[in-house]
Amino acid sequence: MAECDLRVAGFRFGAVKAGIRGKDRLDLGLICAERPASAAGVFTTNRVKAAPVLLDQERIKSGRAQAILVNSGIANACTGAQGLALARLAAGKAASALGIDEELVQVSSTGVIGQQLDPACFEHLPRLAANLSPEGGMEVARAIMTTDTVPKTARRTVAIGGATVTLAGMAKGAGMIQPNMATMLAYILTDAAVAPAVLQGLLRASVAQSFNRITVDGDTSTNDTVLLLASGQAGHSEITDPASPEAARLQAALDDLSRDLALQIVADGEGATKLATIRVEGAPSEAAAEQAARTVANSPLVKTAFFGQDANWGRIIAALGRSGIEFEPDQVDIAFDQAQIVKSGLWLGPAAEAAATEVLRQKAFTVHIALGQGEAACAIHTCDLSLDYVKINADYRS
Amino acid sequence: MAECDLRVAGFRFGAVKAGIRGKDRLDLGLICAERPASAAGVFTTNRVKAAPVLLDQERIKSGRAQAILVNSGIANACTGAQGLALARLAAGKAASALGIDEELVQVSSTGVIGQQLDPACFEHLPRLAANLSPEGGMEVARAIMTTDTVPKTARRTVAIGGATVTLAGMAKGAGMIQPNMATMLAYILTDAAVAPAVLQGLLRASVAQSFNRITVDGDTSTNDTVLLLASGQAGHSEITDPASPEAARLQAALDDLSRDLALQIVADGEGATKLATIRVEGAPSEAAAEQAARTVANSPLVKTAFFGQDANWGRIIAALGRSGIEFEPDQVDIAFDQAQIVKSGLWLGPAAEAAATEVLRQKAFTVHIALGQGEAACAIHTCDLSLDYVKINADYRS
Repeated sequence: MAECDLRVAGFRFGAVKAGIRGKDRLDLGLICAERPASAAGVFTTNRVKAAPVLLDQERIKSGRAQAILVNSGIANACTGAQGLALARLAAGKAASALGIDEELVQVSSTGVIGQQLDPACFEHLPRLAANLSPEGGMEVARAIMTTDTVPKTARRTVAIGGATVTLAGMAKGAGMIQPNMATMLAYILTDAAVAPAVLQGLLRASVAQSFNRITVDGDTSTNDTVLLLASGQAGHSEITDPASPEAARLQAALDDLSRDLALQIVADGEGATKLATIRVEGAPSEAAAEQAARTVANSPLVKTAFFGQDANWGRIIAALGRSGIEFEPDQVDIAFDQAQIVKSGLWLGPAAEAAATEVLRQKAFTVHIALGQGEAACAIHTCDLSLDYVKINADYRS
Repeated sequence: MAECDLRVAGFRFGAVKAGIRGKDRLDLGLICAERPASAAGVFTTNRVKAAPVLLDQERIKSGRAQAILVNSGIANACTGAQGLALARLAAGKAASALGIDEELVQVSSTGVIGQQLDPACFEHLPRLAANLSPEGGMEVARAIMTTDTVPKTARRTVAIGGATVTLAGMAKGAGMIQPNMATMLAYILTDAAVAPAVLQGLLRASVAQSFNRITVDGDTSTNDTVLLLASGQAGHSEITDPASPEAARLQAALDDLSRDLALQIVADGEGATKLATIRVEGAPSEAAAEQAARTVANSPLVKTAFFGQDANWGRIIAALGRSGIEFEPDQVDIAFDQAQIVKSGLWLGPAAEAAATEVLRQKAFTVHIALGQGEAACAIHTCDLSLDYVKINADYRS
């Protein structure tokens, strides 16, 4: 992953080694807007929510935020009243160091569940706050990594109202990645001028078709957070109408960027060697298409077959069959990219299989499943289940 | 696994190497009753059902069966009209060889999905039928193995109406093991005398608390079948009342035997090194307890932690949180066997963790999750997710 230009007018960044994950790792990051920004957030649907998520959910209701403080190494989840007090304390110390209102600080944590953060790590905050820069984005992108092997970043520009609007985003993922917020953090910054209510709508729609369309292992984390901050410095007039052409243009750019980050997360799924898109077509409803695609995308047998580069359509059709949706097995077609292997529920033979096997040698491919029951479709992005996934998760304490 | 005495009055068994799985493996088995037996069956809930399942479901409605023909190597699933014709052909050839009514033959297959069986393999049937014996049960138990490493068998006796009733069972499992019939075949034979309607009720209740309480990988097969045949030769009067004490005694023995076979399947789950029982207690309803226990039991992160002998309660509580049930995180207690590690949602510290880690070194243990929300409980049996699970399923075509 090359360095990505994460500069956005109105934002400064930085990260330090705060000793949370050993001595020699960036593990405390800070993003700060020059002025209170329009802010939107989407958080984990897990009933067990980490302390910073509980805090952020309350604060984001104001539609304003000015800073994001994030640590890796400890998730501050399942830490009770002490953990919540610690999240507040951290936000307060960041606010003091930055000279801003404490209520405008969003806090994120990712790492081991159930351990308390040592408050000593926040003594680095004055030094961190004093050294923020517009070029510091990559440092934050690195500070949020856990089992990620590469930082995940993306950048887009879009013309709005005569101005060039920039969007830049960073994300972390790797494990506990599943529907309704992967175990992931993502921060997206823009210099667009957008009213908070509109911004929240844009973010929610964008997450639905990006981060909520990926799965690594079907596990949903306690800490998932996507924040979108808009500084308004691009120079166009504020977007206040969600139905305006300007909102649509911004939505398109945001969607494009979110999908990019989401696919980076799957491609760097723990131990992943393959990026597979499971596209279910011809379903009676989008909900049915999604349910079928998710069941296939999370099947350990399907995912180990991908790892083995085995065009194992039998496991795919068996997963479809237990997905709970209505369909007729003898109307199902399956193809790997352009290589069709099943027609009307039956195998097309060794030549078709050889072509499908070729497709599976690629790093990325799409499994097309046509049900022949209607017009609805849904695509879910997943990775394979490899030996390294097991090694990583048998050894790593998350 | 030592040899198990599978003799039951009224039944004979045998198996041959029919060349379906290479040249040197028992892969075609036959069980035959002296006279038409009272019969009950429970089959996969997968919408995609293998040809033999479709055939058996029709035939079992008569409440009578006299023979079970089973092959491993090819599942005869997703094989369309040709596959169904082949299942009928196989049953007909077995009936001819045995000199019995074709409608009384049940057929099972397990193995690769989507390939057609070569009818030539059934030319072995006359030889097989001619060599059945009361002692041949272990041969059938071996002939049904796929990725199983050991045959799975159990035997029970129970006194009913002055007679000693014997039950003997055999099963295969290994992968595609999940709720509502694991990928598994199980045949249970008894010399009890039971009316078919009562027998079906006994079997259904028994499967619900045994084979439907295990999971290896969350995948449900297209071929799952449990058959129960009762020869009536034990010498007591026929059980016709499902509410009778005799039915209750037989149910208890059948339940005990079914649980035994089900646990053997999990313990021999593909690559399994641990047998873990996830017991959710204090739930508002049994359905909620089951949903929570299944979510934990199928979490790849929880299962890799078991493989790593890591008392990773954070992953357990995160899985609970995404299970969809209602509970309060700060009322959850978690213990590994007797070693409590979480009280009221909080970690009990390093000493508790050390004790829990000791428990995880065992081959078998129970995770007790107390929700504090009610009186209902449910236990699901699972295994760990090991490096060998991935190796087996990346290489083996099922």
